Amino acid sequence: MRFRPVEASFYDQFTELANHLATGARILAEMLADGADHEAVAQRMRDAEHAADETTHAIIRRVNSTFITPFDREDIYSLASGLDDVMDMMDEVVDMILLYEVRHMPAEISGQVELLQRCADLTSAAMPNLRSMQSLEEYWIEINRLENAGDKNHRRILANIFSGDFKTIEVLKLKDIVEALEDAIDAFERVANTVEQIAVKES
Amino acid sequence: MRFRPVEASFYDQFTELANHLATGARILAEMLADGADHEAVAQRMRDAEHAADETTHAIIRRVNSTFITPFDREDIYSLASGLDDVMDMMDEVVDMILLYEVRHMPAEISGQVELLQRCADLTSAAMPNLRSMQSLEEYWIEINRLENAGDKNHRRILANIFSGDFKTIEVLKLKDIVEALEDAIDAFERVANTVEQIAVKES
Amino acid sequence: MRFRPVEASFYDQFTELANHLATGARILAEMLADGADHEAVAQRMRDAEHAADETTHAIIRRVNSTFITPFDREDIYSLASGLDDVMDMMDEVVDMILLYEVRHMPAEISGQVELLQRCADLTSAAMPNLRSMQSLEEYWIEINRLENAGDKNHRRILANIFSGDFKTIEVLKLKDIVEALEDAIDAFERVANTVEQIAVKES
Repeated sequence: MRFRPVEASFYDQFTELANHLATGARILAEMLADGADHEAVAQRMRDAEHAADETTHAIIRRVNSTFITPFDREDIYSLASGLDDVMDMMDEVVDMILLYEVRHMPAEISGQVELLQRCADLTSAAMPNLRSMQSLEEYWIEINRLENAGDKNHRRILANIFSGDFKTIEVLKLKDIVEALEDAIDAFERVANTVEQIAVKES
Repeated sequence: MRFRPVEASFYDQFTELANHLATGARILAEMLADGADHEAVAQRMRDAEHAADETTHAIIRRVNSTFITPFDREDIYSLASGLDDVMDMMDEVVDMILLYEVRHMPAEISGQVELLQRCADLTSAAMPNLRSMQSLEEYWIEINRLENAGDKNHRRILANIFSGDFKTIEVLKLKDIVEALEDAIDAFERVANTVEQIAVKES
Repeated sequence: MRFRPVEASFYDQFTELANHLATGARILAEMLADGADHEAVAQRMRDAEHAADETTHAIIRRVNSTFITPFDREDIYSLASGLDDVMDMMDEVVDMILLYEVRHMPAEISGQVELLQRCADLTSAAMPNLRSMQSLEEYWIEINRLENAGDKNHRRILANIFSGDFKTIEVLKLKDIVEALEDAIDAFERVANTVEQIAVKES
């Protein structure tokens, strides 16, 4: 039996960081609800984003000050900053909805947000498996499948936005929002790719 | 005589990847032709993009599982992902033309696409030279020259788009397209910079 | 006493690069002045950008050809390219103002440019301290504070732009400009983060 308390902590921190993402995805879904208090929801998103930032910084500090790491320093850094990127992107979507004062959005946008929630939950569930390196393949395959579905959904939404039914100023706002959602889904895929790369190296 | 079958294969794979880019640039040019079947051309672009993805993944897998590599692992990774980025950007341009249903574009846009084709052909011709590290300087100097010409062209197109002759919704669409073309040209320059960096280290 | 002429030169080059940024920030401020000769100011910005490019390339060449470096090669590369990114972004703002023929901008935009100037001056003053690794913490804390202030300012400007007072074509132009300013401020923060990372490793 190997007893490696230092390494254990990295897995805990990654799980903590991914849990912040799951929280963020839930808050994002609330932002889209009818009659949502945009100011209040956006404030909670900022809090979640700060919490994720702190966990990310704690991981980076640890990787810079620890002699033995469970996998390559660079991979730990990629994974932490990749997860943090997702959070930043979800925060950005909430922020845009607040600042642009968007009140009505094409219904398909909720589909993208549900998809983000599933990505977040899957990522959150996968992080503890980094320790044993088990069951990670199912995770990254499913994230890739969701990213593909998100991409198709994204293209339908864009075609709808540019169909001529929306005023140009609304097109400008909605395009920003749906692109930011797409970026967040892509960012989950990049995290999954990083996990795949780690698993391949360690196997 | 050095017999290094493993390394040889990397050069072949980079050449294969760059060839996919040359195909992509040709398909992009077809997309701009009058009366082009946008759906059909975009489908062929997606196929080319998938093919490039597969070659990229094959390179990454190999670099992660091979003990001896012809140059630094990190440089192989940069070169492969840099080439893949170009393909993604060209694919994005085709996709925008399809989704935005853009039928008429300022004529200068073809100039940018011709330039992309020349960058792709040059890159394709340069990849086999990574083995001998000969004739690479001409390649990166010429790519830098083309990128400069592309930048000037890009600025003329933007000024034209914002001249007041286009409806705002068209400005929004065209701006996206010309910026994506510019990004693709820049991405070819980043590939050339990576090749330069490899050549400097190896010399 | 340690006499390390090679390493000394890196500090000088980083200081030189940061000084180009301070010049760039001043030129950007001139671009916003009433009655500015946009063509002439943009030309000076391009010159400053080329100068920064040359210093960046000189640093990269040196790091690739020097055996002993004052800190990790990768960190030198990050710092140089991070500083160069800031310059590119400030250059882009000047270029947009020229190409979009923007004559009137919301007054708060000057606030962002002043903030950029302060970031540039602080960065310029911090670079020589990389040698002794002294007084760097004050620098990165202050940059983080400025980035926060910039973010608040940015959000106010965006809300103003989308308030309905501007024509959609103007919204399109101004949004691009203020986002590029925000990107430049963020890029200064990334430089400060790199400096922090170097300082933590070296301490």
